[in-house]
Amino acid sequence: MDIKDLAAKGLKLRKALFGDAAVEQRMQAFGEFGEPLQHIINAYAYGDIWGRPGLPMSTKSLAMIAMMAAANRPAELRVHLRGALQNGCTPEEIREVLLLVALYCGIPAANEAHRAAMDVLNEEHKA
Amino acid sequence: MDIKDLAAKGLKLRKALFGDAAVEQRMQAFGEFGEPLQHIINAYAYGDIWGRPGLPMSTKSLAMIAMMAAANRPAELRVHLRGALQNGCTPEEIREVLLLVALYCGIPAANEAHRAAMDVLNEEHKA
Amino acid sequence: MDIKDLAAKGLKLRKALFGDAAVEQRMQAFGEFGEPLQHIINAYAYGDIWGRPGLPMSTKSLAMIAMMAAANRPAELRVHLRGALQNGCTPEEIREVLLLVALYCGIPAANEAHRAAMDVLNEEHKA
Amino acid sequence: MDIKDLAAKGLKLRKALFGDAAVEQRMQAFGEFGEPLQHIINAYAYGDIWGRPGLPMSTKSLAMIAMMAAANRPAELRVHLRGALQNGCTPEEIREVLLLVALYCGIPAANEAHRAAMDVLNEEHKA
Amino acid sequence: MDIKDLAAKGLKLRKALFGDAAVEQRMQAFGEFGEPLQHIINAYAYGDIWGRPGLPMSTKSLAMIAMMAAANRPAELRVHLRGALQNGCTPEEIREVLLLVALYCGIPAANEAHRAAMDVLNEEHKA
Amino acid sequence: MDIKDLAAKGLKLRKALFGDAAVEQRMQAFGEFGEPLQHIINAYAYGDIWGRPGLPMSTKSLAMIAMMAAANRPAELRVHLRGALQNGCTPEEIREVLLLVALYCGIPAANEAHRAAMDVLNEEHKA
Repeated sequence: MDIKDLAAKGLKLRKALFGDAAVEQRMQAFGEFGEPLQHIINAYAYGDIWGRPGLPMSTKSLAMIAMMAAANRPAELRVHLRGALQNGCTPEEIREVLLLVALYCGIPAANEAHRAAMDVLNEEHKA
Repeated sequence: MDIKDLAAKGLKLRKALFGDAAVEQRMQAFGEFGEPLQHIINAYAYGDIWGRPGLPMSTKSLAMIAMMAAANRPAELRVHLRGALQNGCTPEEIREVLLLVALYCGIPAANEAHRAAMDVLNEEHKA
Repeated sequence: MDIKDLAAKGLKLRKALFGDAAVEQRMQAFGEFGEPLQHIINAYAYGDIWGRPGLPMSTKSLAMIAMMAAANRPAELRVHLRGALQNGCTPEEIREVLLLVALYCGIPAANEAHRAAMDVLNEEHKA
Repeated sequence: MDIKDLAAKGLKLRKALFGDAAVEQRMQAFGEFGEPLQHIINAYAYGDIWGRPGLPMSTKSLAMIAMMAAANRPAELRVHLRGALQNGCTPEEIREVLLLVALYCGIPAANEAHRAAMDVLNEEHKA
Repeated sequence: MDIKDLAAKGLKLRKALFGDAAVEQRMQAFGEFGEPLQHIINAYAYGDIWGRPGLPMSTKSLAMIAMMAAANRPAELRVHLRGALQNGCTPEEIREVLLLVALYCGIPAANEAHRAAMDVLNEEHKA
Repeated sequence: MDIKDLAAKGLKLRKALFGDAAVEQRMQAFGEFGEPLQHIINAYAYGDIWGRPGLPMSTKSLAMIAMMAAANRPAELRVHLRGALQNGCTPEEIREVLLLVALYCGIPAANEAHRAAMDVLNEEHKA
């Protein structure tokens, strides 16, 4: 497959997950300076890895939430909390992951992740 | 529920997941000094959080793998890779999580996690 | 001891440390979604670990400050800076810990922790 | 060399890198409480380490950017992005480092670092 | 460009940097299970990012050393220390980066990185 | 004070804490390559920060243990566990800090720190 096709395939999946407007806003936020990073995200992350079969999208989303809470990356956590709801995860399923975070990454990581989850659930009228 | 019953309930689940011998070995490794930590693990981690319904055990295991790879904790990652196989996760499902680790936590985190996974799959004759 | 009593004992200690209003505000911030995490904090963190004898509360507070600065958790650091002052730590004692942070976790960790400390000392009129 | 002279030498270099006003504002931000940390920064970081020959200042700046992005320290990253421009690094050179961050520390670290870089490039009219 | 060509281009650069034998050993270490990760490394890391012009290879190596020391990844640090020597960095240049690590990521990170550097310098008869 | 005197003062304190043989072994481990880092440790860490009054040495040791467990630095943790015993901390006091680590940095951090503590207590015949 040509790399351009991989990037186009990834961009389509990314927009299906997060909405056209949100993705376009993020792609333009860093202008020309940010183009190579957007290529990494579209082609390699979404075109390749997210596009692979082998795990339901909802399970991938829950793994992403675990990973971003552990890695102390609250901005990216919010993105993937939105993706999780779009992929059909329920607030209760998300919470079970965050309770594992509390025990295995510590209470501060779980507090930060609950804050992010409440914000996203409120935005999406699911709180 | 009395706290002692919570700890007993958790210990039972922990042994079902990792085997009696492995759990007893770990509980004795730190002697009397380690008793309060073993209580935290048995009562709070397994008796409470792992014992909650709301997510299949296999999904919890995949979230744990994501979390331990992100948090740079290879010894604990090995424990939960074994738990994941016991909970019915396939090597392919585990790998999909590790590929998300590569993109979202970086190649060194994925390399370390692949090393742990190969060791555990070899031990369990699933490589 | 019944788990409910452990949670009640912990909540009482937590309120003594941080004040009734602050604790109640935090307990309600994440609503029903946050109840299991609040249970972890009240029963396991305060009812069990903080309630153990063996170290003065002021020494526990200084260890918490060291830990939260090292773990890059500035929101939780602010909570435990307030707890440290309540537990009788002086600004000078807190600073000695932050200077160890500078050498052993790096200047950026110490800068972030000094910012948090200045905010809390100003709030509490101790700067 | 007397330690006071080392601190004075470092402060001079620090001001040359970041400007008198910015350095004085940062030195006063934490008042008397912050004096020992400012001494560490002036004498040990700038007087000793930054003042050593052996690497061009621009290469040191690029290493600092890599380090601060990896260590999840966006406030300090902004400081050293400004220093990098002052030391003659181009936006393109900075970006090459941030693309290594994407692959080796993960996309969220690179996103955060791009956000910091865009802010600093806009401030300095180099975007 | 087709993705296969990107992977082939990257593999060639990777072998030039680390030697045929070392790369082939690493590519086979994780067997079939590890093939998608090796593809990420060959195509995306080496084929794309390392293959970009814009920074000398030696500067990229020094940035990688800073990043891996900050991220607490000593195994990967060793790989890139070898790459740095291959790319023409001197032991003195590497040390200057590690001294920045001491001040900005803390003494333990610098100790760990010095241990890795001594091992690699001894292996390469450059200590 | 001259910097050489600061380094000599620090080296004396460091040897009092860890023993002449252990310190000399560590100072020689990285040869000439490691001299600037040893200067940082002797002059800035021990000569300045550890030499400051304001906190008992035993409290500094407990803060160091909290910090090194949180920062995932088990080799340095072992050094400061030995220092803590030398500074008069009891195994029980050390354990109270490690139980805070369990709740606030997660079970894997506490497991790793217990392993280090058991090793050091056994070495020192205090287990």
